Amino acid sequence: MTQAPIVPNPKLDLVLERVVDVPRELVWKAWTTPEHVAKWFTPKPWFISDCEIDLRPGGIFRTIMNGPDGEQAINHFCYLEIVPNERLVWTDALLPGYRPAEKPFLTAIITLEAHGNGTKYTAMAMHRDEATQKQHEEMGFFDGWGTVLDQMVAYVKTI
Amino acid sequence: MTQAPIVPNPKLDLVLERVVDVPRELVWKAWTTPEHVAKWFTPKPWFISDCEIDLRPGGIFRTIMNGPDGEQAINHFCYLEIVPNERLVWTDALLPGYRPAEKPFLTAIITLEAHGNGTKYTAMAMHRDEATQKQHEEMGFFDGWGTVLDQMVAYVKTI
Repeated sequence: MTQAPIVPNPKLDLVLERVVDVPRELVWKAWTTPEHVAKWFTPKPWFISDCEIDLRPGGIFRTIMNGPDGEQAINHFCYLEIVPNERLVWTDALLPGYRPAEKPFLTAIITLEAHGNGTKYTAMAMHRDEATQKQHEEMGFFDGWGTVLDQMVAYVKTI
Repeated sequence: MTQAPIVPNPKLDLVLERVVDVPRELVWKAWTTPEHVAKWFTPKPWFISDCEIDLRPGGIFRTIMNGPDGEQAINHFCYLEIVPNERLVWTDALLPGYRPAEKPFLTAIITLEAHGNGTKYTAMAMHRDEATQKQHEEMGFFDGWGTVLDQMVAYVKTI
C-alpha cells in the first residue's frame, strides 16, 4: 500500500521546511517518545508537564503545556498515519478513537527525508479554510514551529 | 502495530450487528471495489451512478447517489484505516488527504469477524454529540444500513 500524496494548498496550509543536521531516526524518536517530546515541544519558558502517546492509527497524542504564569493548555490529537522515520500525521478534527471532534483546527503532517547526514524536515499544518490558516499564521506558526525545531535539534544532540 | 480498540458510546454511536451467511472476504470485496459498491450501497430505488475508491489511509471514498425523482447526493469521505477482511474506517470529518472538513457528521467503522462459514458484521457510526446521533437515528440508520446489508448479501452471492 503506497502512501497517499500530500499536496499543500498555499491558501489553506502552512509549511515549514528546513534541513537539520541530525539524522531522521533521531527526529522520529524525538516526535514519538513522550519523555523526549516533553523536552522540546513548546517554546520556552513554556514547558510540557505531561505527554501521552499511543503510536498507532486512532491512538492518542496528548500534551499538557504550561506557561510561566500558571497558564495551562491541554491538547488532544488522534494519530492518523505512522510511517517510521518518514511520515507522522495527526489531527484534532478527530478525537482519539476516530470520533469527530467539536472544534477542528488542524491536521499536522511531519515528513522526514534523508539529506546527507542530516534530515530534510517538513512540517505542514492543514486547515479547513483561509480564516483558520490566517489565524494560525497570526498565532505565530512559523516562529513557534521553527523555535521548537531548534529546541529539538539541540536536545536530540544530547541523547 | 496492533489496532486501536474501538469502544462504542451508546449515547453517541449507532451500531448495527448482524451475522450474514457470506464469507468476510466477499463482504470486504463488496465494500472496497467501486463496481461492487455501486450495486448495493444505497437503498433501492436510489442508485449509485459513480463510486471512487483510493483504498489507503488518506485516500478518497466518494459516491454519487441518485433518487428516483432526480435527487442527487454526493458524499466525500477520507479512509483512515484499512485492515483487509477485518476493519475498514472512514470519516467525513476529514476530506481526502486529511484536511479538516467544514461539517463533520460521522466516522464509520466496519468490523468483520469469521463466524462459521459466514461473517459477524458490525457497522458503527460515531458522532460528535448526542444531537447528531439522534439526527442520524431519525434519518433511518438502522433501517437504511440494514437494508443495504441485505442488498449486499444478495448481490455478493451472484458474483
